[in-house]
Amino acid sequence: MSATERLMSEAEKINRFLSDIPELSLSGDPRWERVLEAERYALSAGGKRIRAVLAVEFYKLFKGTNEAPSYVYEAACAVELTHTFSLIHDDMPEMDDDDMRRGKPSTHVAFDTATALLAGDGLAILPYEILARLSLEGKISPETSVKLISALSRCAGNRGMIAGQMLDLWSETRYSEIDEAFLKKMSELKTGRMLICSCVFGAILANADESAVNAAIGYAERVGLAFQIVDDILDVTSTAEALGKPIGSDSERQKPTFADVLGLEAAQELAEKLSLEASELIKKYPGSEFLSELAITLATRKS
Amino acid sequence: MSATERLMSEAEKINRFLSDIPELSLSGDPRWERVLEAERYALSAGGKRIRAVLAVEFYKLFKGTNEAPSYVYEAACAVELTHTFSLIHDDMPEMDDDDMRRGKPSTHVAFDTATALLAGDGLAILPYEILARLSLEGKISPETSVKLISALSRCAGNRGMIAGQMLDLWSETRYSEIDEAFLKKMSELKTGRMLICSCVFGAILANADESAVNAAIGYAERVGLAFQIVDDILDVTSTAEALGKPIGSDSERQKPTFADVLGLEAAQELAEKLSLEASELIKKYPGSEFLSELAITLATRKS
Repeated sequence: MSATERLMSEAEKINRFLSDIPELSLSGDPRWERVLEAERYALSAGGKRIRAVLAVEFYKLFKGTNEAPSYVYEAACAVELTHTFSLIHDDMPEMDDDDMRRGKPSTHVAFDTATALLAGDGLAILPYEILARLSLEGKISPETSVKLISALSRCAGNRGMIAGQMLDLWSETRYSEIDEAFLKKMSELKTGRMLICSCVFGAILANADESAVNAAIGYAERVGLAFQIVDDILDVTSTAEALGKPIGSDSERQKPTFADVLGLEAAQELAEKLSLEASELIKKYPGSEFLSELAITLATRKS
Repeated sequence: MSATERLMSEAEKINRFLSDIPELSLSGDPRWERVLEAERYALSAGGKRIRAVLAVEFYKLFKGTNEAPSYVYEAACAVELTHTFSLIHDDMPEMDDDDMRRGKPSTHVAFDTATALLAGDGLAILPYEILARLSLEGKISPETSVKLISALSRCAGNRGMIAGQMLDLWSETRYSEIDEAFLKKMSELKTGRMLICSCVFGAILANADESAVNAAIGYAERVGLAFQIVDDILDVTSTAEALGKPIGSDSERQKPTFADVLGLEAAQELAEKLSLEASELIKKYPGSEFLSELAITLATRKS
């Protein structure tokens, strides 16, 4: 099975766990359950589920196994829920004002802005409810639950993803001040921290030692930056159909990206260099082939 | 010291803990720390801090002590942060569109809507970071941390406060369907669940038994409903100056409240009956006088 096939097969498994989250089940009161419908809508929009897959795969890597138990998938969903909450709020009129997401109307368009605001809030809080429940059900220890909750809240919160979104807002009116260092910082916070969280989730769930945690962080940092660089390249070179969103949306606003500050060729080279470094960091762990290949695949993807 | 004086003195203590939250300290990068400034602004707008005070006082009641250690105040702040996140998002244009909050410009007016959206997100996530940290620092056990996180996320989340906000949105276009039962359900979810959370926080922190937890929940349910009823009464009878916001804002939109569906006199009687029941539920615990008096004070307040 190629890395892409394994990624897709694991993503489908994640999708099943996402649709089975008990806290998101409907009981028949549409007066308030419309918010659950909006959350389920946003979650069902798909995506590669890379974050959840990274959590599951780093668990397998550090546990030295080919299979992960259900609770690992349930915990991995927490990262995907946080990612989806940020997408709902990012698309809203006061933020990026994007009407489409992955070829479907954004949540605030498919529902309304008030419901989208609350659906984002609901998905921001739900991961902590799930991670606490896994402990109360005896599936993970309270110590593990607390470590996961600490990692997720720090990576998603004020000094993590949210700080990255603030940098993005800040840069909107300051295009001349955007350079490679700024773009790296923004990428590190806005998308990088949640990728670190994903890999660290796997390490925590596998009860891995500190050097393993550091390898996971190093891998995630490089893959995260490479992923953002390739996103910027594809925004220039890909077709609208392949991406499921209008291309060139950044350059229309003339907002500099890695493609601009580095040039397309150097940007692609950097992405590939980073993904090689990432795979280097984990190669001493038996069974690292998939994660190595995944890093390369993400850096050379065409959509 | 009267109940009002003790409430104010404890509220001041809570305010000191809120301004000392290490996760909200500024380090000098205004490019992204603007979101922290917005959160600190929203938190500094004040309020009675009833939620945090209830958490601290129920800890004292069930622990049989007059003093609470610092970590109890730190944990109690988590409830206040969640309440403040909901106020920031509630005031935004897509929700209540309120430009003023407690006599000051709302966060989205003092800053901007994008920053307010992210500040609400930040304050929604921060409580879990703090509650996990208290365990990692050894101030509370991982078991206690998980119980607090479970209680908070369930009371604030999709089936708690957020469901109540959805009911509020639902009712905007259905005034004719609003009756006493609906208003009770909305109050139970929108404000009641977070008051339950506050009292239960105290019980969990004191490691109280199940009958104590049930007494705390019963007290909170009644005080929460009484508080909402009095809010509705004051919206009709109080002055704009005393409330710090325009009066009659609900009736201008002709949205029925408890004052409408019950009549002012019956509404006031119900609030007082509920607060008496609340104090009855906790009177067997030595030292319950303050919480009893607080219930009565809240039901007979004039602002």
